[in-house]
Amino acid sequence: MLAAQATDFPRWFQDVIAKAELAENGPVRGTMVVRPYGYAIWELLQEAMNRRIKATGAANAYFPLLIPESYLQREAEHVEGFSPELAVVTHAGGKQLEEPAVIRPTSETVIGEYMAKWIQSYRDLPLLLNQWANVVRWELRPRLFLRTTEFLWQEGHTAHGSAEDARAYATKILYDVYRAVMVDVLAIPVVAGRKTRRERFAGAVNTMTLEAMMRDGKALQMGTSHELGQNFARAFDIGYLSREGQRELAWTTSWGSSTRMVGGLIMAHGDDDGLRVPPAVAPIQVVVLAVKDEAIGAARTIAGELTAAGLRVSVDDRADQPFGRRAVNWELKGVPVRIEIGPRDLAAGAATVVRRLRSAKSAVALSELTPTVVDALEADQAHLLAEATARQESRIADVATVGEAIEAAASGWARLPYDVIGEDGEDRLGESGITVRCLQRPDGSLPVEDDESGLTAYVGRSY
Amino acid sequence: MLAAQATDFPRWFQDVIAKAELAENGPVRGTMVVRPYGYAIWELLQEAMNRRIKATGAANAYFPLLIPESYLQREAEHVEGFSPELAVVTHAGGKQLEEPAVIRPTSETVIGEYMAKWIQSYRDLPLLLNQWANVVRWELRPRLFLRTTEFLWQEGHTAHGSAEDARAYATKILYDVYRAVMVDVLAIPVVAGRKTRRERFAGAVNTMTLEAMMRDGKALQMGTSHELGQNFARAFDIGYLSREGQRELAWTTSWGSSTRMVGGLIMAHGDDDGLRVPPAVAPIQVVVLAVKDEAIGAARTIAGELTAAGLRVSVDDRADQPFGRRAVNWELKGVPVRIEIGPRDLAAGAATVVRRLRSAKSAVALSELTPTVVDALEADQAHLLAEATARQESRIADVATVGEAIEAAASGWARLPYDVIGEDGEDRLGESGITVRCLQRPDGSLPVEDDESGLTAYVGRSY
Repeated sequence: MLAAQATDFPRWFQDVIAKAELAENGPVRGTMVVRPYGYAIWELLQEAMNRRIKATGAANAYFPLLIPESYLQREAEHVEGFSPELAVVTHAGGKQLEEPAVIRPTSETVIGEYMAKWIQSYRDLPLLLNQWANVVRWELRPRLFLRTTEFLWQEGHTAHGSAEDARAYATKILYDVYRAVMVDVLAIPVVAGRKTRRERFAGAVNTMTLEAMMRDGKALQMGTSHELGQNFARAFDIGYLSREGQRELAWTTSWGSSTRMVGGLIMAHGDDDGLRVPPAVAPIQVVVLAVKDEAIGAARTIAGELTAAGLRVSVDDRADQPFGRRAVNWELKGVPVRIEIGPRDLAAGAATVVRRLRSAKSAVALSELTPTVVDALEADQAHLLAEATARQESRIADVATVGEAIEAAASGWARLPYDVIGEDGEDRLGESGITVRCLQRPDGSLPVEDDESGLTAYVGRSY
Repeated sequence: MLAAQATDFPRWFQDVIAKAELAENGPVRGTMVVRPYGYAIWELLQEAMNRRIKATGAANAYFPLLIPESYLQREAEHVEGFSPELAVVTHAGGKQLEEPAVIRPTSETVIGEYMAKWIQSYRDLPLLLNQWANVVRWELRPRLFLRTTEFLWQEGHTAHGSAEDARAYATKILYDVYRAVMVDVLAIPVVAGRKTRRERFAGAVNTMTLEAMMRDGKALQMGTSHELGQNFARAFDIGYLSREGQRELAWTTSWGSSTRMVGGLIMAHGDDDGLRVPPAVAPIQVVVLAVKDEAIGAARTIAGELTAAGLRVSVDDRADQPFGRRAVNWELKGVPVRIEIGPRDLAAGAATVVRRLRSAKSAVALSELTPTVVDALEADQAHLLAEATARQESRIADVATVGEAIEAAASGWARLPYDVIGEDGEDRLGESGITVRCLQRPDGSLPVEDDESGLTAYVGRSY
């Protein structure tokens, strides 16, 4: 049904997206239709992310989709980085526009323009904004969820009164928001580090990243947080009157996470039978499957009890369709717990509980069903994280040379001193389609300042 | 500070949007920046709407922003209606596109294309989809919240096995979702009816609408629900195999509500002192204002208690700024309840409670604060609805001729038999900038079928 992961991982990824009805290609090249099941995962993820973003003090706002072309040009590195990917509106309302408008590829420029208006004095700092939006970046090799011409994301943009405050906030977003969601909600372990100079966001002075290992050993960048220094403040004149009455330039940050995380969820947890969705973001945590018509009433009663216990539950009452096909379909969709109820179960006052992560079925008394399911969901959330963590650890090889790193990257990641690599080594890795995913200090913490010696590099192939 | 409503309502509207920090103009003509306070109102409104939409059985999904130009052309009335408003992407990724892509003005066409793929048999019906998205319609006379080139909305799209089922669902959305949110959440009374033929959505066979009266007597269309008949099913080949094994065309609907509702909230409730936000969508339901520095601790304690009771609370601890200016600012923002706490209040074990809807202040014992505030919010929500309902009723004049209707529309709406108006009368009204807002049967219910005789027309100026 699905291609096997070991045989053809990219094909497996495509298959599972299509068969679990997560998404499909849109009519304009590289765009994506997110189907209800895929969108429901995104909504739960979004809610978890949004709550944590607000807890840091940021407020949501909304800035326009269309940005005057001239805005992009104000920050030199930024325009250079994004120019090749822009979609441009030249005509509107039946006329040619005087100045073409680009569809936002990201919103530093337009938000910078408004921050400059809104910030007058040190009292207005920090200004902490976030928006949930669609962005468009024309992709040469589009891939559903991972690299689509249009994608959904949140982008945070903040302004601060000092470099230290900006750094502390960007770091807080990386750890307390992004890593927390990825680990606690998506059950995906991540390595936190900073990007090398060449991998930085266009216009940033420092890019921090979270890298996750997929089941094929490749890395996926799951979220990034950037210190923009005073680059955008200078370009858009984001200044403020300090406590001492001096006019100063602000320090800004930006940070983003997108529908790409859904791609990460698929590739970090899915197996040859399909998706395995962590209970925390499972649109359907429990499906109650009536084996025969006469069990439909009982299935609904059970579903009602589980729903009342706060779970997300669906009833499969298609008793006229082959049982096996229905069961396989729910496995494909990665629903954590399936409860099968047939006449025999009913007679015994029990139901059959099948968990997506285990192969054994078990009979559970109806009176024990709710606590059993609640425990199972909690255990399975932890199990997925433990499994992914063990796999990631086992596939990171400590090596000493660039050559060994290239070898190790065939099946996982390599870890080695960044001093061994250097700019030349990055070129050599690049020739083999491998990049430095991130840099850490020896104790695993984020490097500070521009000092890049004595750092550990994580190296691998990536999406 | 603000223009007076009676003197210059449009200017008052602009002023209140700017001074309450709800929104401002974007850099591309007609676009809008929604600032955090305005966006927070939208989020609460969105949440209330989303919950009710899901309760009807619809699922959220996401379809692409960019639509091939050729899709728009498949439904003749649709393309005619939307062509003048389209924004067109002609270049992307550094190249001219083979086929230009339009930015969605609405998504019937692209969703129709996918419905055709997803629907095979009667078992797949009804298919109930909704999406929260941005759309772009190039506006000649843009106005914040009411008519912006880009706006945020939800658009629902459904397919059914019969005209009756489609009609029943479109009607359910109008009443159980839209009217429920407008009345119960926004505290805005609405008149439900159908649009005349000329006011129909481009491509619809029937457009149902909810019309609200603003404080200047003009009408605002707050939400519409369309029966599309088989027009889009024919254009996009949305067919299914019936229970009897026949291939049939589906019947589709679409329905939308947007950030325009925030404009409605401002104009239905605001007064010369600023906004008056219904408690149900107030981002800040209660502000606790520390009059002096020494009251800041107490203000925080009170805020903590109110937050624990489930209220949305903010503390104003800017004790170094003039008290009067702070109080006026919270009135401007329409925060329903303001609690002032100063040294004298503290000594008396009380706080001063000021409600946005009343002029009197009252001293309330600290121990009574939470229940007092909870009651006040509930009463004020009801009060706003009652006030708006009374105003609307008092400003609808029952008239007998088109001439009288034109006269009545100078200060409110006119109600008269549609048979008196006819197509000619609609032309005459149009010359005075007046339209038939909607038609009802004499008992206030929605007209059925195409029969348009014996109906009551609501006539007025509109936004």
